[in-house]
Amino acid sequence: MPHSSKQNIKVAVDNCIFTVKDNELYILLIQMKKKPFTNVWALPGGLLWQTETPDKAAIRILKEETNVSNVYLEQLYAFGETKRDPFGRVVSLAYFALIPPTGLRLLTLSKYADVKWWKFTDLPRLAYDHNRIALYAKQRLAWKIEYTNVAWSLLPENFTLSQLQKVYEAILGKRLDKRNFRKKVLALGLIAALGKKELLGAHRPAMLYKFKDKKAAIIKIL
Amino acid sequence: MPHSSKQNIKVAVDNCIFTVKDNELYILLIQMKKKPFTNVWALPGGLLWQTETPDKAAIRILKEETNVSNVYLEQLYAFGETKRDPFGRVVSLAYFALIPPTGLRLLTLSKYADVKWWKFTDLPRLAYDHNRIALYAKQRLAWKIEYTNVAWSLLPENFTLSQLQKVYEAILGKRLDKRNFRKKVLALGLIAALGKKELLGAHRPAMLYKFKDKKAAIIKIL
Repeated sequence: MPHSSKQNIKVAVDNCIFTVKDNELYILLIQMKKKPFTNVWALPGGLLWQTETPDKAAIRILKEETNVSNVYLEQLYAFGETKRDPFGRVVSLAYFALIPPTGLRLLTLSKYADVKWWKFTDLPRLAYDHNRIALYAKQRLAWKIEYTNVAWSLLPENFTLSQLQKVYEAILGKRLDKRNFRKKVLALGLIAALGKKELLGAHRPAMLYKFKDKKAAIIKIL
Repeated sequence: MPHSSKQNIKVAVDNCIFTVKDNELYILLIQMKKKPFTNVWALPGGLLWQTETPDKAAIRILKEETNVSNVYLEQLYAFGETKRDPFGRVVSLAYFALIPPTGLRLLTLSKYADVKWWKFTDLPRLAYDHNRIALYAKQRLAWKIEYTNVAWSLLPENFTLSQLQKVYEAILGKRLDKRNFRKKVLALGLIAALGKKELLGAHRPAMLYKFKDKKAAIIKIL
């Protein structure tokens, strides 16, 4: 393998951190300082430390920006186009995380100019190939909510079917038929009725539900 | 990020190449020469060339060992445990491929001692963390055939429902109820009856089917 010894590639981790608030899907972006990306928005990320696994790096970056841990976090894809970084070849291991709406921190002020939740439908032009990564993460998320329980990270412990439907609509970017949604989501067997109803609200109180399991679960259809 | 400049990580691609023959799932393994893995079996792979994308590297490695191209190939996962390679830190971008049963080549004889299809249920102790990678690939494959059309790469152009069921049983490692399988697989809408029957066989000729689409397709269940 004559090429091996010449390999000079860095490995980075980039996080696509999603939340849903006010019935809209948001993604966390940081604003860069360094040229040629001064003031350009990007996904939070950085090079892997020499003694750090990719998972640990993704958790570190998530905690740096949001102070959140113990949420849904999954490796998305390795992006390895040869010219994706103007500073040299970098393979990015992209992750996606789903977190409840939360405050943001600027612990890394010296590194970034700003950090902000961006409405996914208003995504600006991002640095590197981060638009592509963010779009793929959103696509994976849209697939995943249709056959797994990943939405648990985006909802409070107990929720109504209306709240759940709004999360699905925000991610899928379309309105769903209420009866059809309820029928299908209950048939998946991922959520359980609590036997008590929400106390607030002017309307007829709605039944509360919770996820049976908060680990990753794959729905078997065969 | 004080750690960045110290990063010394190589990036490799490793392929999990599956086929189904005689109702059994097989994976392609190569036998290594170099110490400390002399005569140990492993997944075919190697370091990424400096100017090569991960996808191109996976296709190159697949073609080197099998002379097959234009089959189902998908990036599986990036494996990045810090001590997974005794020669230094290597992040492995694992791929999985599904190919029809085929001859194997030893074009890379100088590099490997042997290359062979191994029954997946008889997997030997592999080099590095390759047992873990192979098990994860098999798990992903088992998930995928339940909601996508990936099985097309493992079947001839036209096939009977019995042939399809045998591929599913080989991958899932269990017998499936015939009536239930047919009902569910037809409900997925991925295959179409050809309107003609197989000509060989002593039994009543069975209807032939084909996949409607040979691109990756995700089944929407909501």
